Amino acid sequence: MKQKPKILITNDDGIHAPGIKMLWQALVDHADVTIIAPGEDQSGRGLAITLRAPLQIEAVEWERGTPAWKVNGTPADCVKLALGVVLPHKPDLIVSGINRGSNSGRTVLYSGTVGGAIEGALRRVPGIAFSLEDANHPNFGAIAHHIYPIVQHVIENPLPTGTILNVNFPFDTSDIKGMKLARQGQSYWIDQPDQRIHPEGSPYFWLAGRWSDHAEHEESDVALLQKGYITAVPIHIDELTDHDVITAQQEQFGKLFKGTLKSIETQ
Amino acid sequence: MKQKPKILITNDDGIHAPGIKMLWQALVDHADVTIIAPGEDQSGRGLAITLRAPLQIEAVEWERGTPAWKVNGTPADCVKLALGVVLPHKPDLIVSGINRGSNSGRTVLYSGTVGGAIEGALRRVPGIAFSLEDANHPNFGAIAHHIYPIVQHVIENPLPTGTILNVNFPFDTSDIKGMKLARQGQSYWIDQPDQRIHPEGSPYFWLAGRWSDHAEHEESDVALLQKGYITAVPIHIDELTDHDVITAQQEQFGKLFKGTLKSIETQ
Repeated sequence: MKQKPKILITNDDGIHAPGIKMLWQALVDHADVTIIAPGEDQSGRGLAITLRAPLQIEAVEWERGTPAWKVNGTPADCVKLALGVVLPHKPDLIVSGINRGSNSGRTVLYSGTVGGAIEGALRRVPGIAFSLEDANHPNFGAIAHHIYPIVQHVIENPLPTGTILNVNFPFDTSDIKGMKLARQGQSYWIDQPDQRIHPEGSPYFWLAGRWSDHAEHEESDVALLQKGYITAVPIHIDELTDHDVITAQQEQFGKLFKGTLKSIETQ
Repeated sequence: MKQKPKILITNDDGIHAPGIKMLWQALVDHADVTIIAPGEDQSGRGLAITLRAPLQIEAVEWERGTPAWKVNGTPADCVKLALGVVLPHKPDLIVSGINRGSNSGRTVLYSGTVGGAIEGALRRVPGIAFSLEDANHPNFGAIAHHIYPIVQHVIENPLPTGTILNVNFPFDTSDIKGMKLARQGQSYWIDQPDQRIHPEGSPYFWLAGRWSDHAEHEESDVALLQKGYITAVPIHIDELTDHDVITAQQEQFGKLFKGTLKSIETQ
């Protein structure tokens, strides 16, 4: 009999969020699952790691004997401690989510859900991030049966090293049109910081915004989600070099340094 | 007379760090400068933003009448509040640093210094991140005269939208060989979490690691820094799609969904 794949589950909404419970339910029969997730909500923390505070790992009671731990840090911290301290073997896959709210378009680098998967990819463990667009009344139960087929496909058809899969489920889960690999959209949250006044008189701000209505390519995740598709964007984070700039400006940069030296010599 | 460029300065070591002071000194005669930086050390926070806590902006006394503000958040928070609340006009450039320690190779997405520049690029403001390899005895004074020529060059030769410049100065600042546009290296910190025991008996961890000795391309920032060059990596963060995966697997994903539907129907 084939051995079950070893899967690490994490998220950014925190270990007590309903989305991670549903992710576990979708995978527990098919995989050897361990949960290591933040103790508190880490939305918006991207790939942040905690360098200036001590990290603690605490066991959490979970159903069916699944080993579960909470960490007082970010999703990337959780993955680092999973791979470096907790897990006896490297997992076959890291699965992050299911996030309450969309991680489409240009928001991916802010997403702690995606950050957990990116942390894995940087450590050569493949990863998938799952998010559901509806942040207010997320019906995780309606999409749970789509999780394992995607996970199984990625295990059987590995992504290139350094590429993760960013999966978003559309807002209306009752009428899903299909599933498509998509390109990353251009839309994002246009910042509108919300000013309030503290009872003692000083101002403070909540980061807030409105979703931009960017013209989107029809094969972008943003456009396809709007049409009711599940989107999966393969995101490559291993090397981010803009090679065209190097080709175009290498000579100028060499001269720039020589010019700098000259201006010092003549001072 | 040409108007001076409007430059926003930020960093991740915090507004009281020596590196940001040196960055300001290098630019104050050439530009209309505003400083908005974290009140505390935000190293390792990448592009993290603060969604679950209120943000405060507090004026800080600075020399020569430069407007300066500290924020109880990350570099990306600082840039968001700068663009959305503090600055009357969009700046021409965001300059972040000078970081105490290298941000080369695969570490860029963890860097708050680079995160400040990325936040700008996502808002269509060009950005440069500056870092100095020597974290223990950084001689910022020895490299300050290289800052403005690079800044001036980027203002006069704009980078493509969504591309930032990640500049690292080599460890030995006394014998710099030149300046090169470089590709992002593959080296990174191999995690070795450092376990300690709290006086009350419970374990905790500091994230720690050792720098990997990855085989590097001779045109990578890691290799060129080692040879004594200033490196500038153009980093493209606007769209991270791995298009090859879409081309190779689109059909399979369509079938995957149909297969999923079928397995439900037959349940």
